[in-house]
Amino acid sequence: MARIMICGDIVWAHEEVKALFTGLAEVVRMNSPNRADFLAGLKPGGKYHGTVGIYRHNSSSDYIGVFDSEIINALAETGTIKWIAHNGAGYDQIDVAQCSAKGISVSNTPGAVDDATATTAMYLVLSCLRHYSKAERSLYAGTWKTPISSGDTHDLTGRTLGILGLGGIGLRLAHLVHAFPMRVIYYSRHKVLDAPEWCKYVGSMEELFKQSDVLSVHVPLREETVHLVGEKQIRVMKRGSIIVNTARGKVIDEEALIRALEDGHLSSVGLDVFPNEPSVNPRLLEFPQNALLPHMGTENQDSQRHMEVRALTNLKDFLREGKGKDLVPEMRSKL
Amino acid sequence: MARIMICGDIVWAHEEVKALFTGLAEVVRMNSPNRADFLAGLKPGGKYHGTVGIYRHNSSSDYIGVFDSEIINALAETGTIKWIAHNGAGYDQIDVAQCSAKGISVSNTPGAVDDATATTAMYLVLSCLRHYSKAERSLYAGTWKTPISSGDTHDLTGRTLGILGLGGIGLRLAHLVHAFPMRVIYYSRHKVLDAPEWCKYVGSMEELFKQSDVLSVHVPLREETVHLVGEKQIRVMKRGSIIVNTARGKVIDEEALIRALEDGHLSSVGLDVFPNEPSVNPRLLEFPQNALLPHMGTENQDSQRHMEVRALTNLKDFLREGKGKDLVPEMRSKL
Repeated sequence: MARIMICGDIVWAHEEVKALFTGLAEVVRMNSPNRADFLAGLKPGGKYHGTVGIYRHNSSSDYIGVFDSEIINALAETGTIKWIAHNGAGYDQIDVAQCSAKGISVSNTPGAVDDATATTAMYLVLSCLRHYSKAERSLYAGTWKTPISSGDTHDLTGRTLGILGLGGIGLRLAHLVHAFPMRVIYYSRHKVLDAPEWCKYVGSMEELFKQSDVLSVHVPLREETVHLVGEKQIRVMKRGSIIVNTARGKVIDEEALIRALEDGHLSSVGLDVFPNEPSVNPRLLEFPQNALLPHMGTENQDSQRHMEVRALTNLKDFLREGKGKDLVPEMRSKL
Repeated sequence: MARIMICGDIVWAHEEVKALFTGLAEVVRMNSPNRADFLAGLKPGGKYHGTVGIYRHNSSSDYIGVFDSEIINALAETGTIKWIAHNGAGYDQIDVAQCSAKGISVSNTPGAVDDATATTAMYLVLSCLRHYSKAERSLYAGTWKTPISSGDTHDLTGRTLGILGLGGIGLRLAHLVHAFPMRVIYYSRHKVLDAPEWCKYVGSMEELFKQSDVLSVHVPLREETVHLVGEKQIRVMKRGSIIVNTARGKVIDEEALIRALEDGHLSSVGLDVFPNEPSVNPRLLEFPQNALLPHMGTENQDSQRHMEVRALTNLKDFLREGKGKDLVPEMRSKL
């Protein structure tokens, strides 16, 4: 029977692991306390020898580090490992270029997190426009609503939300705020053909930043998206605008963001992600109107179970049919 | 020219006051530091003598107290005051029965706050289901997401929201959460004929509490709604349910609510209102999963301007046409 490896946490889908793989594959759990032990385990005679596919969760990096070229090369040298089924929409912890070079396929779990992450973005939009987080802190501090000025806060209805990157999460957020309605505009590398009519494509990033009251970031972290939102883009926005980020911290130039908060060009930011998690730049805490979450994007049991099952299903489909449905886009374009 | 009195704050609509009343009425501002001064001002020769209508905001109670029977009687004794245009959806600070007995009409500002208050309820629903407020406090305390357990949190999608009182605010909230979609059910004294098909009437309060994952309160405070949500109703709910209140604190029996949090029958509560504002029962702060706001319901400049203009327009319509559009429901039924 084929062997598969569970590399990192499975919290909710224990029964589903049994249901998916009983009679189909032997399940080995990655239990290496460090990278050296992991690499040794992949060698002939090692405890992971014979593995053909890997379920991966970011929690494994606490022990063996990210899937960088060293790990990918070691996986490739086994000659048997051909699929990494990553649990998560973002897969920046995997060196996908090296995987491509070595003939290892990578899948992620795109749709499973759309709802949960868009909900987090929605919460941050609400909090930044209405200063709810600031108000909660004020109540907990025993000062009722003393530092709240209604002059700094606005209804969502009628304001313009700009979506940078209209993938599944951005589109889901568009639908949620359309209920108010907010006016929704977006910019992506390409116009999205099945976007609803009221979700308007603006031809450039500059136009997106210029028109948005609230700008929400939904692009994946890649080499070319590091600091995609920088000084220049932020300064194109209207004075008093808001930026929300539930994608990845490094997509925004944090220093430029803080400068814009300091001189009031941005009225507030809503962040679920930071460049060096779990560390948070303490200067962000100095602006009471900010809403800052500790990467809660997909943090709930319903979504996490969905993601675990989706990743495991990619692995099962690889075993039975030779490939999983959620091959990452970079690998699709090369098919 | 007729005289009208501005009794309490106007923050945003200064220009509108001029536009509405120039040439139509003389505008007198209530500037009494206490009730005795106010009552004296109403007497013949007093500074408020000759007033025919009053714009009222709750902020006036800081100086002269609520519009109880003593004040209503004094207003009636002038023989000229016939209309109180209250700024706010809730008018529990006005003794409406006494107004009716004395022939003084009362208007409120119903539609103007629907959007802002429903948005606040939406925020509390999000925060309670996903533990966002708890997560923010954890980040600000420097512990990243340490106390968050995804096992305690849920997506909105597919859960059941129960609306107690389907007026304008409840209906607006229904539309906002329908975007996920949540399943929406409601109970009101009467079935609402223009409610959308997906917003389902359940025939009794008991059925509403039984089926709801999240129960949101949207009934006004009246004698018969004090402690409408009590021990019995709360215990009918499923274990782990959530209660959200953006209406008035006294509609819920706070002691019963706290007991249900203590023994885990309720997983969390989201409250924008409290029985004795601005004081907050410190026991509510002991449950980190709660989301507690300092009465932010309508707290934003867009809504506040709408409300001020709406209240002032009722007063203007009274001057020009003998009555304002937003006569409170108790007085309508007697017409």
